[in-house]
Amino acid sequence: MKKNWFEEKIKKFNSIGGYQKPEFIQDSVKLDSNENYVISKQFQNDIISSARKNSDIREYPLGGVERLINAISKFTKIPSYMIGVGNGSDQILDLILSNFASKQTKVLTSNPTFGFFEERCKLYNIPLIAIPFSDDMELDMKDFTKKSKNADILYLDSPNNPTGFQFSKNELQKLIKSFDGLVIIDEAYGEFSEYSLSNLTKTQENLIVVQTLSKSFGLAGLRLGYFIANKKFTESFMNVLQYPYPVSTITIESGIQALEKSNLMKDAIDTIKIERKRIIETLRKYDAFEVFDSKANFVLFDAHGAYKRVYSALAEQGISIRKLGKIGNHDGCLRVTIGTKEMNSKFLLAIRDLLG
Amino acid sequence: MKKNWFEEKIKKFNSIGGYQKPEFIQDSVKLDSNENYVISKQFQNDIISSARKNSDIREYPLGGVERLINAISKFTKIPSYMIGVGNGSDQILDLILSNFASKQTKVLTSNPTFGFFEERCKLYNIPLIAIPFSDDMELDMKDFTKKSKNADILYLDSPNNPTGFQFSKNELQKLIKSFDGLVIIDEAYGEFSEYSLSNLTKTQENLIVVQTLSKSFGLAGLRLGYFIANKKFTESFMNVLQYPYPVSTITIESGIQALEKSNLMKDAIDTIKIERKRIIETLRKYDAFEVFDSKANFVLFDAHGAYKRVYSALAEQGISIRKLGKIGNHDGCLRVTIGTKEMNSKFLLAIRDLLG
Repeated sequence: MKKNWFEEKIKKFNSIGGYQKPEFIQDSVKLDSNENYVISKQFQNDIISSARKNSDIREYPLGGVERLINAISKFTKIPSYMIGVGNGSDQILDLILSNFASKQTKVLTSNPTFGFFEERCKLYNIPLIAIPFSDDMELDMKDFTKKSKNADILYLDSPNNPTGFQFSKNELQKLIKSFDGLVIIDEAYGEFSEYSLSNLTKTQENLIVVQTLSKSFGLAGLRLGYFIANKKFTESFMNVLQYPYPVSTITIESGIQALEKSNLMKDAIDTIKIERKRIIETLRKYDAFEVFDSKANFVLFDAHGAYKRVYSALAEQGISIRKLGKIGNHDGCLRVTIGTKEMNSKFLLAIRDLLG
Repeated sequence: MKKNWFEEKIKKFNSIGGYQKPEFIQDSVKLDSNENYVISKQFQNDIISSARKNSDIREYPLGGVERLINAISKFTKIPSYMIGVGNGSDQILDLILSNFASKQTKVLTSNPTFGFFEERCKLYNIPLIAIPFSDDMELDMKDFTKKSKNADILYLDSPNNPTGFQFSKNELQKLIKSFDGLVIIDEAYGEFSEYSLSNLTKTQENLIVVQTLSKSFGLAGLRLGYFIANKKFTESFMNVLQYPYPVSTITIESGIQALEKSNLMKDAIDTIKIERKRIIETLRKYDAFEVFDSKANFVLFDAHGAYKRVYSALAEQGISIRKLGKIGNHDGCLRVTIGTKEMNSKFLLAIRDLLG
């Protein structure tokens, strides 16, 4: 190899830029990162305290991943040999891409899609075909199916972030059944929607359904993702691709505790769905906004020419939402996470003061 | 691509086999995984309790990695722009390999070397040149330097696991300075040895020194590794190659707490060094054993034809050490971790009962 070949590599990596994390705004009403504040802080305290008592972190978590997988199996009602875990669903996606994809594999997805996934494709020189959202923030299934003939891997976040869109279950199942290559369905926001495709993995050997405890269980800080897929893929991933100790002891033990208390999560989801309806209906009252339907724990709306002003006015009042700008033909997109009833009321009140 | 190309991939991965985790033996005197029991359980409880109080795990750990890096900087006295972190040093090594190495880059290392590193090279089809240890469990620097002319990447665990061997500082510095390609020095066991090469990263742009809190701080279960390298590499790694949230909030906050109490770690290291001397000297009294010197928190010895019997007799008494078998020309290798004084005494007593 050429002398200093690795310096050339570093230059190349720097030109990619990487995933952009949101700005940190101290003490804000944090509605910018699709976190789940409906789950109480007490729940978090309880599971970590209990995890601490059950753990000796001087030791490698030998056998821990296996117990965690059993807990996920009980929760999802999917056999444990079809379940794998990772350091956030990020790591699962990254290991799939770095080991299954290459310059030679075309990936079909939507535009926009999960930013991290897109960045990893760039990093590994994996060609992306991205179908844009229509003016009503939906994906055209005909177009998608047509383009899939030319793709090797299909990646869809279902529901999609940041649009909140999800194909109908029937349509998506049909697409997957007709597709030859590998299908990755990212259900990070799946618990907020009306269906999951996890059961389809029992008959579709080419399907990997990726899920996480970050959103539904409000455990973003724990970095715990999992996937559901056929036995052969799962074994290969967990025995060869995955690291021997991919998640910490505390993440394992807290995750098991959380899964055992999944009723609390389900109650939180119910609240979030009610609040989502309230936010959509309230925002739709303003002519200034075009508000899109959502199957996730956030709502996307186009504030057109006013979007920077709306964003700044909210920020001044300590309310942080996500400023996205152009998506498809919509120029002024903003995304607001569904928080607690109180957080959402603060947001809606600030909007009323500004535009009402 | 061919139909079902990913099934071919899965078959290929399964043929690799992956890293083998040790057996789990319940309630054993655990001297098999180089964990650090000299650090008290109370220390662990304290840092996790404090981490829990400082955290809201419903949120992504925004800004957390930066604070952790500042704490590592204070501890290592290396500027923070030269420090990066990962989900265990495993993940750091994996990201370096998957992004800097390929079929075209020859890696020079020792045989044996860190098993995980070897497995990742197999997975990515990276050619390995491995220099075997001599009969006195040392590496021949002349041979190593000669073979390095033909290599693009150099990987050395320093001290080496499982032999405990470390090149003299002078010799290793000379080797690195004369080498054109990328050098990865894995100091997972560095705190137990007499030197670190971290300061050499200030002048050697091709050097990455990898370290971890798993061994020295007794935090294996937290999965926290870090590296020290030049600014350009570090920026590129942390901004592009690394995930946005590579470690959990609890790992970040506990890590910061532990680093602030590094005196406790240093006391533990002192104890382990004294105990290492005692174990080496005691084992050397038995003609049945050939005991090798060690710069790490474990001792390798060749029990020749008796090694299976020694291993089993210890296991029967609930003492778990690592059975390695053949290393170089030594057929009966066993590795024992240095535990607390009490654990080590149990081990030595059991050996005396068996052979004394």
